Amino acid sequence: MAATASPSLLSYQNFNSLCDSVEAFLFDCDGVIWKGDKLIEGVPEALSALRSKGKKLVFVTNNSTKSRKQYAKKFQNLGLEVSEEEIFSSSFAAAMFLKIKISQQTKRVYVIGEEGILEELELAGFTGLGGPEDGKKTVDLKPNCLFEHDKNVGAVVVGLDHYINYYKLQYGTLCIRENPGCLFVATNRDAVGHMTDLQEWPGAGCMVAAICGTTKREPIVVGKPSTFMMDFLLQRFHIKPSKMCMVGDRLDTDILFGQNAGCKTLLVLSGVTSLSELEDPSNHIKPDHYTNKLSDILQFIET
Amino acid sequence: MAATASPSLLSYQNFNSLCDSVEAFLFDCDGVIWKGDKLIEGVPEALSALRSKGKKLVFVTNNSTKSRKQYAKKFQNLGLEVSEEEIFSSSFAAAMFLKIKISQQTKRVYVIGEEGILEELELAGFTGLGGPEDGKKTVDLKPNCLFEHDKNVGAVVVGLDHYINYYKLQYGTLCIRENPGCLFVATNRDAVGHMTDLQEWPGAGCMVAAICGTTKREPIVVGKPSTFMMDFLLQRFHIKPSKMCMVGDRLDTDILFGQNAGCKTLLVLSGVTSLSELEDPSNHIKPDHYTNKLSDILQFIET
Repeated sequence: MAATASPSLLSYQNFNSLCDSVEAFLFDCDGVIWKGDKLIEGVPEALSALRSKGKKLVFVTNNSTKSRKQYAKKFQNLGLEVSEEEIFSSSFAAAMFLKIKISQQTKRVYVIGEEGILEELELAGFTGLGGPEDGKKTVDLKPNCLFEHDKNVGAVVVGLDHYINYYKLQYGTLCIRENPGCLFVATNRDAVGHMTDLQEWPGAGCMVAAICGTTKREPIVVGKPSTFMMDFLLQRFHIKPSKMCMVGDRLDTDILFGQNAGCKTLLVLSGVTSLSELEDPSNHIKPDHYTNKLSDILQFIET
Repeated sequence: MAATASPSLLSYQNFNSLCDSVEAFLFDCDGVIWKGDKLIEGVPEALSALRSKGKKLVFVTNNSTKSRKQYAKKFQNLGLEVSEEEIFSSSFAAAMFLKIKISQQTKRVYVIGEEGILEELELAGFTGLGGPEDGKKTVDLKPNCLFEHDKNVGAVVVGLDHYINYYKLQYGTLCIRENPGCLFVATNRDAVGHMTDLQEWPGAGCMVAAICGTTKREPIVVGKPSTFMMDFLLQRFHIKPSKMCMVGDRLDTDILFGQNAGCKTLLVLSGVTSLSELEDPSNHIKPDHYTNKLSDILQFIET
């Protein structure tokens, strides 16, 4: 359900109207809650204020480098009380997708990505190959050398990988091109993200594009803007999507996800999207509301 | 000039007719002349036979890992007499393109690729950054750490890079996104190539797609199927394109290049393209002729 009207700047009136109309707020993390390992100013107070109004809080992140468990720990380290059950990460989504799609016999999955994907795969009963273990591997391009890959790999999961290398690219490519029926799953396609507080870095969209470039195949995307995660969220919380508001910093993932799922949407300008990008005529993804940063709601909220 | 008729299997008759109608044969290298560091059977004899018929031989390769000088040495090591002047590599094309397009003040170029690009850039008067030198660099994603890049880089050249890593991806991305007017040049977009004799490996298309994925920009491609190199070739040899035959193993680069330039085209099945791919209804790139391997001409040639 795409919004057609122009997005409105968040105000006392429209925020309270929004707040009254929803039961849950879904939050993206990078660029909304934190940048890298630094909390964005005022976030703890804003989340507390929403909780005190009886709102359910859910965290929906495309960043696959951590598992739900690891995210719960990150929240805790930053002084935020968030439980594992409130977290939906694209690492979890990838594992859940494979649990539904892959036969019980095909349990081996090659990972271009980090620990979070491997941990969620293991919890779901898969054997994860690759990932950090292959981070320092190199290739040998000598004559008569054959690069061997596991013919039983039934899926390749590609996510953000700070240790991307030619070994992993060849391994993933061989599985997708040569193993019959091998699935190509992308956690997400974010071009860039705030991996640190001071600047943006290449996101999973970089690694996913690399594998598209070499396999000439398109992936199944399980993270935002795909609404795959919404099914699990609905199962757990029994709240109608129209009673949810998605809060994010990216138009093409967060806001599109919210719109695709039928939620209300709020863009914050504390991450990768600038006001001029939002207002650019070439942008067709319009949130219901926008504001500079999450803590702006503190001036409107009635406690 | 795209061929509309079905490609014909090379025969005594059509080969001799082709041979009579052209003055020069242009050859792709990987998958035609060699696979990795191994010569394909019968190639020296086939090249000799064409030379003895008075044909001009030119080698046009998308593989940017070597400079023309390094390629001449590779030919020599494999026992083939080929001079530097007969070689047109995408590393050379990238340097020539920048020489035309970049102002004399902007001499700094960041390279995601290997030695060949750096060597050609230096010959053309540029300062190449990155490449092999950045092959072992890692990133530090700690808070308050800023990844610095050279604000004076005026172009990023992306080619095949066996040492691709997150450092280079971030460096190239920052130059393209943040340096005003910075050009994004791809040596080529081959998905895979015969980097070794026994199998295919990710090609430059993999690294180029990765940078497209993170910058959301499309590159200028200087290698095949772009006909940019043809201008230099015409300057040197003064032979009309219609009097040339492009011989290659890839439909979407070699054969398309030949057709785009107005040459006759011959596909060899000794590289990445199989007969079933050629004949697949989804393939719309049809060479004039095809044969299993270059040395098939030996049975037809009259010396």
